[in-house]
Amino acid sequence: MIRKRLDRIRRLALRGALAGFAGSLLLPAAALAQEQGIPAEEVATRLDAVWILLAAALVFVMHPGFAMLESGLTRAKNTVNVLMKNFINVAMGVVAFYLIGYGLTGQGTPVFGTEGFMLIGVDTKDPMTLIYFVFALMFCATAATIVSGAMAERMRWPAYLIYAFVMTAVIYPVVAKWVWTSDGWLAEMGFMDFAGSTVVHLVGATSAMAGLLLLGARIGKYGPDGRINAIPGHNLPMATLGAMILWFGWYGFNVGSTLGAGNPALIGWTAATTTMGAGAGTLGAMFTIWIISGKPDLSMTLNGALGGLVAITASTAFVGFASALLIGAIAGVIVVFAALAFDRLRLDDPVGALAVHGIGGIWGTLSIGLLGYTDITSAEPTPVGLLVGGGLSQLGVQAIGIVATIAWVFGASFALFAAIKYTVGLRVTPEEEMEGLDVGEHGTGAYHGEMFGLGSHGLEGGHHRTPRAAYLLEENPAT
Amino acid sequence: MIRKRLDRIRRLALRGALAGFAGSLLLPAAALAQEQGIPAEEVATRLDAVWILLAAALVFVMHPGFAMLESGLTRAKNTVNVLMKNFINVAMGVVAFYLIGYGLTGQGTPVFGTEGFMLIGVDTKDPMTLIYFVFALMFCATAATIVSGAMAERMRWPAYLIYAFVMTAVIYPVVAKWVWTSDGWLAEMGFMDFAGSTVVHLVGATSAMAGLLLLGARIGKYGPDGRINAIPGHNLPMATLGAMILWFGWYGFNVGSTLGAGNPALIGWTAATTTMGAGAGTLGAMFTIWIISGKPDLSMTLNGALGGLVAITASTAFVGFASALLIGAIAGVIVVFAALAFDRLRLDDPVGALAVHGIGGIWGTLSIGLLGYTDITSAEPTPVGLLVGGGLSQLGVQAIGIVATIAWVFGASFALFAAIKYTVGLRVTPEEEMEGLDVGEHGTGAYHGEMFGLGSHGLEGGHHRTPRAAYLLEENPAT
Amino acid sequence: MIRKRLDRIRRLALRGALAGFAGSLLLPAAALAQEQGIPAEEVATRLDAVWILLAAALVFVMHPGFAMLESGLTRAKNTVNVLMKNFINVAMGVVAFYLIGYGLTGQGTPVFGTEGFMLIGVDTKDPMTLIYFVFALMFCATAATIVSGAMAERMRWPAYLIYAFVMTAVIYPVVAKWVWTSDGWLAEMGFMDFAGSTVVHLVGATSAMAGLLLLGARIGKYGPDGRINAIPGHNLPMATLGAMILWFGWYGFNVGSTLGAGNPALIGWTAATTTMGAGAGTLGAMFTIWIISGKPDLSMTLNGALGGLVAITASTAFVGFASALLIGAIAGVIVVFAALAFDRLRLDDPVGALAVHGIGGIWGTLSIGLLGYTDITSAEPTPVGLLVGGGLSQLGVQAIGIVATIAWVFGASFALFAAIKYTVGLRVTPEEEMEGLDVGEHGTGAYHGEMFGLGSHGLEGGHHRTPRAAYLLEENPAT
Repeated sequence: MIRKRLDRIRRLALRGALAGFAGSLLLPAAALAQEQGIPAEEVATRLDAVWILLAAALVFVMHPGFAMLESGLTRAKNTVNVLMKNFINVAMGVVAFYLIGYGLTGQGTPVFGTEGFMLIGVDTKDPMTLIYFVFALMFCATAATIVSGAMAERMRWPAYLIYAFVMTAVIYPVVAKWVWTSDGWLAEMGFMDFAGSTVVHLVGATSAMAGLLLLGARIGKYGPDGRINAIPGHNLPMATLGAMILWFGWYGFNVGSTLGAGNPALIGWTAATTTMGAGAGTLGAMFTIWIISGKPDLSMTLNGALGGLVAITASTAFVGFASALLIGAIAGVIVVFAALAFDRLRLDDPVGALAVHGIGGIWGTLSIGLLGYTDITSAEPTPVGLLVGGGLSQLGVQAIGIVATIAWVFGASFALFAAIKYTVGLRVTPEEEMEGLDVGEHGTGAYHGEMFGLGSHGLEGGHHRTPRAAYLLEENPAT
Repeated sequence: MIRKRLDRIRRLALRGALAGFAGSLLLPAAALAQEQGIPAEEVATRLDAVWILLAAALVFVMHPGFAMLESGLTRAKNTVNVLMKNFINVAMGVVAFYLIGYGLTGQGTPVFGTEGFMLIGVDTKDPMTLIYFVFALMFCATAATIVSGAMAERMRWPAYLIYAFVMTAVIYPVVAKWVWTSDGWLAEMGFMDFAGSTVVHLVGATSAMAGLLLLGARIGKYGPDGRINAIPGHNLPMATLGAMILWFGWYGFNVGSTLGAGNPALIGWTAATTTMGAGAGTLGAMFTIWIISGKPDLSMTLNGALGGLVAITASTAFVGFASALLIGAIAGVIVVFAALAFDRLRLDDPVGALAVHGIGGIWGTLSIGLLGYTDITSAEPTPVGLLVGGGLSQLGVQAIGIVATIAWVFGASFALFAAIKYTVGLRVTPEEEMEGLDVGEHGTGAYHGEMFGLGSHGLEGGHHRTPRAAYLLEENPAT
Repeated sequence: MIRKRLDRIRRLALRGALAGFAGSLLLPAAALAQEQGIPAEEVATRLDAVWILLAAALVFVMHPGFAMLESGLTRAKNTVNVLMKNFINVAMGVVAFYLIGYGLTGQGTPVFGTEGFMLIGVDTKDPMTLIYFVFALMFCATAATIVSGAMAERMRWPAYLIYAFVMTAVIYPVVAKWVWTSDGWLAEMGFMDFAGSTVVHLVGATSAMAGLLLLGARIGKYGPDGRINAIPGHNLPMATLGAMILWFGWYGFNVGSTLGAGNPALIGWTAATTTMGAGAGTLGAMFTIWIISGKPDLSMTLNGALGGLVAITASTAFVGFASALLIGAIAGVIVVFAALAFDRLRLDDPVGALAVHGIGGIWGTLSIGLLGYTDITSAEPTPVGLLVGGGLSQLGVQAIGIVATIAWVFGASFALFAAIKYTVGLRVTPEEEMEGLDVGEHGTGAYHGEMFGLGSHGLEGGHHRTPRAAYLLEENPAT
């Protein structure tokens, strides 16, 4: 027995040795842990940990997805600014959620949590606590990033930093508390939102709407004659890559919201319905814009896929396959009409975030009240949707959740953006906006002339640098 | 006992609470599931579910990989079209495979399945069924996407939509049935193709070949004097990113074809041989093109990596390490010569898909008959390859599988593309081809002039929009 | 009993059948394996296998990350060259690490291993061996790739190939042996580097430093008047995507260095501290460069994130949350100052690799000696850091490890690059450097004129092709 155990330790040590990498110092402990008769429950917990960690990484990858999508759909002169916003969201989210946000999502009152700030008093040595913390943090930063696209191309950098902090510290966590913490008031009411059509996407879109009302449209977007001018994105391959990365990350977002591997059939179910929602959304938008405009437009198709994904996010664990296809397809159709409608309302949203995340999020949340079941992987799921025989009550609860979320997020965001507007300022000067925010806010352009074989006639970013930036980034005759 | 159980439930609820996210409604059920003495077999099934779900996500990521590769290797004026094709493949595949394709891969006759259409009659509450469905769907869409690159830059959009539907509904599923379903006729013969050198890659390349014969070369590719003109890709960073994403996704494609974690040594084995095939293919192609042309060309190097990956796909679970390096290296060399040969045959394949997926796929499939073993992770694997003492019979079976696959796919695809050609039309007009398919098929260019600091002298896409597209996308003086 | 077993086999076969994909030939074996009463230990091993395989894939994805980062931060005319270097690193690493490097990391002397070359004598049928091999190989290639950025834009291609082989065959493996193999001399001393701040990042940066001294600065970087010219990167979206992909991959790099799921709390801990290090590094650098230069610069912000990640790499499993934020923030600040300082020292590092990986790596390694604990997830971790009450000894050991690593890597690399310089040559001609390495070394440019709607006035790469390249890549009137 002892001999066998020693052999095993030696074998494990040898493994590490031959592999030649990280953690040899930890190997003896690991070897011992493996050696004892491990209960299957312990292995189940380990599996939950690995699975949700990987899901969190997949949600993280949505940030490069959004960064590519948003910068591809906007103009080259504002690209650095868009990228910075996406990058800083996660960084700011890390700090804000750790300091404040996480505590607000915790137990406490039905409206906000009162424990766990800075992880104090939390059992961080529990196998799952920190993994859930990271997973939750990635969701929080995702909600914040939705706003960066909608308010692109004219917002001051300091204003965005303040917004990103408040969003990830307070605005988002409160809604997460309502819906996803067992003593949250919407959770108690039975509001259903599996992975965040409301909690993440509608929150982001609502905050963006409040911001847009205070920020106004980009110069030139709406002509004096009421004419709506299209301002095409500068790099559609980048936008397409972004949308596809988002779809990839959504397998972490939706399927990872199982929070563990305890119900493997639900993992398969959510993976299948998520895929169906995305596919149907893509086709729905592609055919809709083709019929309306005469051309199968790429940007609208991408937004259709995302709309389908947003819509299926709430219901992925609660609907069947035909319903998932229907929910996605309808999302694809309405995203196109909603994008056009917001434009007519002169809400200038460069990337279509209001349509995708707002309208898509509302539709997805309501769809449970129409087509949903609880416990979909059981032998006999209980219908809660009106159209599948579940009556009206769930639909009512879903509507209450949507209205409450909009009220809180719109109110808080409007107050926040108004406070910013009348203190540090929300919008760049018209001169800077015309020139591009990359030079004005960040001191450099996204692309440099050399790329185009045009020598010094390329992007002229350097001429507009501030003296201090110039100190670091002088013109280079060799470039 | 009861107390301990309640404590555990409370602790799990608290976890979810503090983490503040998705799924609190499901937590009590999960807690109960964890609470009971779980048999290790149940945990093993959960692990299979998580592993194959993540593998499916990795196969999905091959779609952005192909999108970047193919659009990078073609011209800017056709970029939107290439991106749309790659994006729509998955979306169309979701619908077609759900409606028809999945059923054709099921049990039934040796030639096609007859059950499981629309998932009817399938035990979707089995822990693995839907995960396998999603995994299989991603493979199906991958086969379809190979054609998009080979037929790039001159195919009509409606024609592509029809093709994508038929490919994912019928053409691919039949071959998958033959090889990977236990009562398929090639499976019964003992045809070996672990992850799809034939089933996915050769199928895609053969269909592309049929299409190319009916579609013809791009204008200007072959001069009247027999001269072959190179048409370089417009964005090699994008193509390189694509190839690297593909390599990443291949860990899901090949290693995920273990279908579960039941044999962990096989996971390691396939990961190692896949990596070796890719690395050797890269070096093989790089040195070959260097010797031939005097320069280590990037596009050929990328295609060498992909050729190595395609070739090792069949044999990854059946060969040793030296063999894996050899299979990859030979693939890298033959991809270069094959690409040049197809060009001399005036088969105008803008991305080299015939060479990579066709010749690479055939070589990989045959390599098992030369170098393969069954049950490679057992103490004494049984040789089936001619050169390792397994005789000729496996090589014969592999050849039969290749010939049968080519016959079916070429025949079906030729019929399909011919039917398209003489109804909706396969090819755009010469005028549209010269101008680019982005404007003609999709109403907008991939890049906009602002990117280059050139004001209104950038891409002139807008001038060619249809009246209805113009309604949505009017020229904007502010751009 | 028999009936139940048969039913189970049938059910599993059906699953595979209906799913219609890879591996049906292996299904009976898998079914049998699942059938027997599996001990929980066996499932635990399977989980370790799946987890580390996926971690290895995440480390692989750092290669596209580096490829995008480095090519985005350099000039368009050298893009193909930068991409080729990043691509070939992994390919060369596969071969070199298999042939030589892996054996050098194995058991043997305290300074280098003497067994496992070409995997001979290694138990490759052990469930974990090959997975650790692939994981270790990805680390090895990562160390190599750091150099590609620092020495970009003027190094000969054959020189780089030789370097990549020696680095992955010898220079890196020796350090990995010292630190991560149980009989390595630094491991015996108690040197702590959880995931490679020293073993991977400092090794890469030190090798780059040696190379830079022999290679010299790019033409035009430093004016005759002592003036430092900025040479801005040509594509910041690409660089940003790269940095974000790197952050994503770091969850495999750091968290995967747990080498298994035996301690799930440690998985959560390393995920949390990695995220915190990255976030704090981002903010640290962003505010620092803002204060210094007057603008929140994007490139510096990206390098701050990477600096934070590099620094937390050593200590991720050994420090608390406030410490992780502090380590990351300090890394962000010092990366900015270090990048400026290296520039003043006329060490021309186009991507800031010396600052990020060198200074960041040293800081991270030392930080354990200041703030670290062993066994952080235990109830009462033992402090080893000076500032948390652990005394000075660990700090001393950390310093010894850093000095020894620098001595070996600098010496070996200097000898290597000097040998290359005086044989095949290290640097391209001034003419080629001015024109760009893409044409000179690889025969083609990264971008083609068509992209810009400029017809034949785009990139003029074709004019400079060698006759043999021209044979393959003739000018095409149709382009």
